[in-house]
Amino acid sequence: MLVIKVGGGEGINYDYICEDIAGIIKRGVKIVLVHGGSHEANVLSEKLGKPPRFVTSVSGYESRYTDRETLEIFAMVYSGKVNKFIVEKFQKLGINAVGLSGIDGRLLEGQKKSTLKIIEGGKKKVLRGDNTGKVEKVNIDLLMLLINNGYLPVISPLCSSYEGEAINVDGDRAAALLAVKLNADKLIILSNVPGLLKNVEDESSLIKHIDRSKVSEFMEFAKRRMKKKIMGTAEAVEGGVKEVIFADARIKNPVTNALNAKGTVIN
Amino acid sequence: MLVIKVGGGEGINYDYICEDIAGIIKRGVKIVLVHGGSHEANVLSEKLGKPPRFVTSVSGYESRYTDRETLEIFAMVYSGKVNKFIVEKFQKLGINAVGLSGIDGRLLEGQKKSTLKIIEGGKKKVLRGDNTGKVEKVNIDLLMLLINNGYLPVISPLCSSYEGEAINVDGDRAAALLAVKLNADKLIILSNVPGLLKNVEDESSLIKHIDRSKVSEFMEFAKRRMKKKIMGTAEAVEGGVKEVIFADARIKNPVTNALNAKGTVIN
Repeated sequence: MLVIKVGGGEGINYDYICEDIAGIIKRGVKIVLVHGGSHEANVLSEKLGKPPRFVTSVSGYESRYTDRETLEIFAMVYSGKVNKFIVEKFQKLGINAVGLSGIDGRLLEGQKKSTLKIIEGGKKKVLRGDNTGKVEKVNIDLLMLLINNGYLPVISPLCSSYEGEAINVDGDRAAALLAVKLNADKLIILSNVPGLLKNVEDESSLIKHIDRSKVSEFMEFAKRRMKKKIMGTAEAVEGGVKEVIFADARIKNPVTNALNAKGTVIN
Repeated sequence: MLVIKVGGGEGINYDYICEDIAGIIKRGVKIVLVHGGSHEANVLSEKLGKPPRFVTSVSGYESRYTDRETLEIFAMVYSGKVNKFIVEKFQKLGINAVGLSGIDGRLLEGQKKSTLKIIEGGKKKVLRGDNTGKVEKVNIDLLMLLINNGYLPVISPLCSSYEGEAINVDGDRAAALLAVKLNADKLIILSNVPGLLKNVEDESSLIKHIDRSKVSEFMEFAKRRMKKKIMGTAEAVEGGVKEVIFADARIKNPVTNALNAKGTVIN
């Protein structure tokens, strides 16, 4: 079993990803795909006159402030446009994909956090009305029901709170928990960079290997969204996932490349 | 088994619908819900500067011209916002809903029609680039897999062409085919009117009963979107569904009302 997370940044080539995954599935490998949609969400937010608001938590992580209107945009882009058009690509390739969000069948469940403690302009602030959280539970039964009946689950990272409310969660950490709960052999995290870079300005500064016991030491190289990927990686290896690979989602055969160690391998 | 279709017109109260359905499910009735989203799709289309284009076919039926951009808006609203927030309402009510579009698992499959023959300004025209079609096949296995494992399927009427492309289909006729294929006892069609009216301007002119052998005779009373409901009804009764009920989705207990014959009963 492979859990693959594909980011939603600019430049990511979903045709390459779906073609590669289709080939791997046809060789008998079971896969769960989790996707992003951040770039598309930003584009729609701007068009609707509701520009995205990214905030930095007091512990230094960046996240999208998600009021109810933003959550709606998020649902439209991630669970509507991106999810259904990934499913469409797979259907055209003869793979029977089923697109789900985390709220469907409470596939992803966790605690809602309606208050964010952030740093803005050097000052600590409390931001209310947030609809975010962290995935803590996975409905493995529903996933296995689909996988064992020949379906490819394609998951958008909306999540259900324990009270059944839709909340926005980080897709990388959701994928990490899925990999743990599914006892996946590998977690592959694809984005619009070749992997973890020592210097974000220089794609040749790729860190090729990280020892599984030293993941958190590499947080110093992680900028912006990469921080959550490192955090997810730490959670995945701690949970027993044998290997996590960061690889480039802009080029042909992105998953095969990752499996061939072209990227940052954490094991 | 009940198949319920809820329209997407203005004034429809999804809280009332979900509460009523939750109560009925808790009494042991199996349900499949199909929903619309036309009003929300129109609102988003306008906001995005891509106003909806409704066309009238040479045979007199109104439909939404669906170029690829419109299909994307349709996917965002129907499969993203409306579908996920119906699922959320059910999750809050303790019903484990799973939202799917017709392209997921090829739940709904049919022939794509890329050319529309329309009447515009009194003239016949051919309109190309359309992404619509008619549902001809249903993936009953996937539906029963979910239902038999305690999930409530909530379906948005995107459909898969035989080639795997996403297409827009009429939700009423999709629900009718689902009712036929699921051997449903009843098909309930809820919208923002009390049922089929003799005079669309007068809600007290409700037609209370239609004999199943005479459905097509009542097409004369159907205006605009009601035409597809009559067409779906004809298809459902022809396919063996024992009863179709049109009822009001704006008021409390809309499904219970329908089951109590408050609306137009076709049997």
